[in-house]
Amino acid sequence: MLGLLGAGGAGLALGGIGGATAASAVVRGERAARSHPFHGAHQQGVTTPAPDALVLASLDMVEGATVDDLRELLADWTYAASRLSQGLEVAEDGAAGTSPEAPPPDSGEALGLDAAGLTITIGVGPSLFDDRFGLEDRRPTALVDLPLFAGDLLEAARCGGDLCIQACAADSQVALHAVRNLMRIAFGRAQVRWLQTGFTHAEGSAERAMTPRNLLGFKDGSANLRVDDPEHLAEHVWVGDDDQAWLAGGTYLVARRIRMTVESWDRTRLREQERVIGRTKLEGAPLTGGAERDDVDLDATDDTGQPAMDANAHVRLAHPSVTGTRILRRPFNYVDGVTSVGQLDAGLVFLSFQRDPEQFVTIQRSMRTDLLNEYIRHVGSAVFAILPGIAEGESLGDRLLA
Amino acid sequence: MLGLLGAGGAGLALGGIGGATAASAVVRGERAARSHPFHGAHQQGVTTPAPDALVLASLDMVEGATVDDLRELLADWTYAASRLSQGLEVAEDGAAGTSPEAPPPDSGEALGLDAAGLTITIGVGPSLFDDRFGLEDRRPTALVDLPLFAGDLLEAARCGGDLCIQACAADSQVALHAVRNLMRIAFGRAQVRWLQTGFTHAEGSAERAMTPRNLLGFKDGSANLRVDDPEHLAEHVWVGDDDQAWLAGGTYLVARRIRMTVESWDRTRLREQERVIGRTKLEGAPLTGGAERDDVDLDATDDTGQPAMDANAHVRLAHPSVTGTRILRRPFNYVDGVTSVGQLDAGLVFLSFQRDPEQFVTIQRSMRTDLLNEYIRHVGSAVFAILPGIAEGESLGDRLLA
Repeated sequence: MLGLLGAGGAGLALGGIGGATAASAVVRGERAARSHPFHGAHQQGVTTPAPDALVLASLDMVEGATVDDLRELLADWTYAASRLSQGLEVAEDGAAGTSPEAPPPDSGEALGLDAAGLTITIGVGPSLFDDRFGLEDRRPTALVDLPLFAGDLLEAARCGGDLCIQACAADSQVALHAVRNLMRIAFGRAQVRWLQTGFTHAEGSAERAMTPRNLLGFKDGSANLRVDDPEHLAEHVWVGDDDQAWLAGGTYLVARRIRMTVESWDRTRLREQERVIGRTKLEGAPLTGGAERDDVDLDATDDTGQPAMDANAHVRLAHPSVTGTRILRRPFNYVDGVTSVGQLDAGLVFLSFQRDPEQFVTIQRSMRTDLLNEYIRHVGSAVFAILPGIAEGESLGDRLLA
Repeated sequence: MLGLLGAGGAGLALGGIGGATAASAVVRGERAARSHPFHGAHQQGVTTPAPDALVLASLDMVEGATVDDLRELLADWTYAASRLSQGLEVAEDGAAGTSPEAPPPDSGEALGLDAAGLTITIGVGPSLFDDRFGLEDRRPTALVDLPLFAGDLLEAARCGGDLCIQACAADSQVALHAVRNLMRIAFGRAQVRWLQTGFTHAEGSAERAMTPRNLLGFKDGSANLRVDDPEHLAEHVWVGDDDQAWLAGGTYLVARRIRMTVESWDRTRLREQERVIGRTKLEGAPLTGGAERDDVDLDATDDTGQPAMDANAHVRLAHPSVTGTRILRRPFNYVDGVTSVGQLDAGLVFLSFQRDPEQFVTIQRSMRTDLLNEYIRHVGSAVFAILPGIAEGESLGDRLLA
C-alpha cells in the first residue's frame, strides 16, 4: 500500500503529465491506492482532498446510555477508524471472525479493496452536552445549534445529532463500509439519526486538475481557502486554545443539505444563471473580469457605468470583503431519487470547516438576499465540533472526557 | 479520448501487471478515459462491464402525449445519448448555448470531464403498449408486468414505467449528468417516475480484478453468464426474431430494488451467513467444495453424509440445474439514507438481462423458500424491453414505431 502524505506530494509528482483529463485519469488511479495517516495534530478529512464519495452519518446516543458508554464508543471507533483508514478490516480476523459461531466483526464488502484514500472524521454535536453525560460545563461556547435562517425549510429528520461520522473515499463501497461498520460498533450505545451520501468528480484541491462543478453546472470552490497555507488554516479553521482545552486543534463542521430545483434552473437563460452566480458558466470567471482564480473586483463597472456584478449575486454576498470572514468549504453533490411531485431530489451537501460556526452564520446571513435563493432550499442542518487529532495510543474521546 | 473496444482489450493490455489491487488501481484510471461505441447490433450497458456508478430512471409519458411525441423523444434521446456516451455535451454549444438569452441545452456539470466509460441504455415498459399510442399490437408477448412473488413488499412509487434510462459510468457525476439531461429533453413529453442510484467497486467482468461484493459482504457474480461468449448471449440474453420484429437484437431488463436488513445480517453468525448463501464468505467458494469459480456440486455431502449445502441455500435455489434457466446479472449496491426506524435503507439494485422475463420469473419462483428471504425485501420492481442497437443515422425508436 502506498502511503502518500496527502495531496501536495501527489500533485507535484503528477505535474506536467498533460492536459487536465489525462492528469485526472492518472490521479484517480493513484488515489485508489492511497491512504492517509490517521494520527496527527488534526483529524483526517478536513484538509485532505475531497475524493469522489461522501457518506456522512449523524448518530444519537441511545436512551439510558452513560458517559462510560460514550467513552468506550469513542475508544472503539478510534481503534476501528485507525484500521479502516489504512485499508484494513475493522478488527483483526475481521470478515472471517475468530469463530464460525460468532458474527464476524467486519461486514466484509470492502474485502480485497485498498484504502481508496478513505478518511474518517468524528465529531460531537451540541446535544451531547445536555444533562445526560455530565458534560454541561465542557460545552464550548461556540457549540450551539445554528439559528434558523431566512428561507430555511428544515426537516427535523435531517438535522442535528449527538455524534457525526464523515467518511470520504475514492470508492463509494469503501466509504459506506466504514460508516456501516462504525454504526454497527455503536449498536446499543448510539443509533443512526440520518445519513447522507454525496459525490464529486474531482479532487477538491485547487492546485490539481479542475475545480469541481455543482449541479447548477457552475464551478464550486474557485475561491476556497488554500489547504496548503498553515496560517490561513490557523486563522480560519483550527480551534485555538481560547475555548475548551479539549477542542484545541479541532474545528467545527457545518453540514447543510441544500436542495436545488434543478428543473427550474435548467430552464433559466444563461445570462440570468450567470447574473445569479456572478461568474461565467464555462470558465468560472468573475463577471467583474479576469480569470477563474483571479480576485473578484466588486467595484468593477460595465460599459454603461453600472456595477458589473449584481448587488445580490451569490459570489458577491459570499465574498470575504462583504462578509468579513472565510470558511473552508468541502462541497459534495447529491441525488436521492425523485420527490413526490416528480422532481429530482438533488443538490448540494454543503460542508464547511471553520474555527467558529459564527463564521458560517455570518456568511449565511449575508446570503439572505442572494439571487440564488430562488433555486435552492436548505432542508437539513447540523453543526459538530470535530475532535482534535490524536497520537498513537490515544483515543479520540480522551481529552473531551478526561 | 481513448476508444477502447470494451473490457476485453483493456483486460488483456493490463494482464500481468501485478496483484489485484495494483491492477484495479490502474484499471480505474484507464476506465475514466474510456468510451464505448454507441452504435452497433446491441445497445451499450448490457454486456459492457458495470463500472462504479449506476443511475436508473423510469419515466412515464405525460397526459396527452402522442405517438409523434414518443417518436420525437426517442429521436432526441438517440442524438443526445450518442454524444454523451462519447464524452460530449448533450448538444453542440451545449453548456454555453447559442445565445445568453436562452437556457443552455446542457446543464454543464460534466464540462471538462471525459466519457468515464458512460453507457446509456434505453428501454420501453409494458404500459407503453396500452391504448394511448396505438401500439397495442406491437407489444411483445413477453413484455408484461412481473407477477407478484411471495414476500414482495412493493412500493408503487418504485415500480413500473413507460420508459427507462440506464446510465452507468466510472464517475457518479457523469452518470447523473446523462440521466438529468435526458430527463430534461423529455420535458413536456415524459416525466420521471422513479430514479435509483447504485454503486459497485469493481468491473463486472469475471476476467478482470475481483468479483464485486454485495452489502451482505459476499461475492456477487461468481457464476454469472460470461459476456464474452456469443453463444451464451444468443441463448440467454438477446431476443431473436421469434417475437415482434422490432425487438430482434434487444433484450429484457428486470430491475428489482431489494432492501437488505443489514443490521440483522451483521448480527448473524458466520456459519449461518454461509449456510444461507451456500458459499464461504472470504473466498466465495461453494460450500460443496472447490474454488470460487468452480461449478457447484449440489449433490456433494459432508462427512456425516448430509448434503454439504442446505436445501434452501441461496446459491442452490438460483442454480441453473435447479431453475433450468440462466440470466445475465448486473448488480449494484445502494444506500438511500436511513429508514424511519433508524435502519440503513441499503441493499441491492438487482438488474438482470434475459431474452424473456420468464427466465427471471422462473428463478424468482425458485427462490420462494430461499433462506436469504429472512434478510431481504423486494420493494421495487420493473421490466423493460431494451431496444435493439442501431446503426448511425438510425433512431432508437425507428423499428418500434415504423
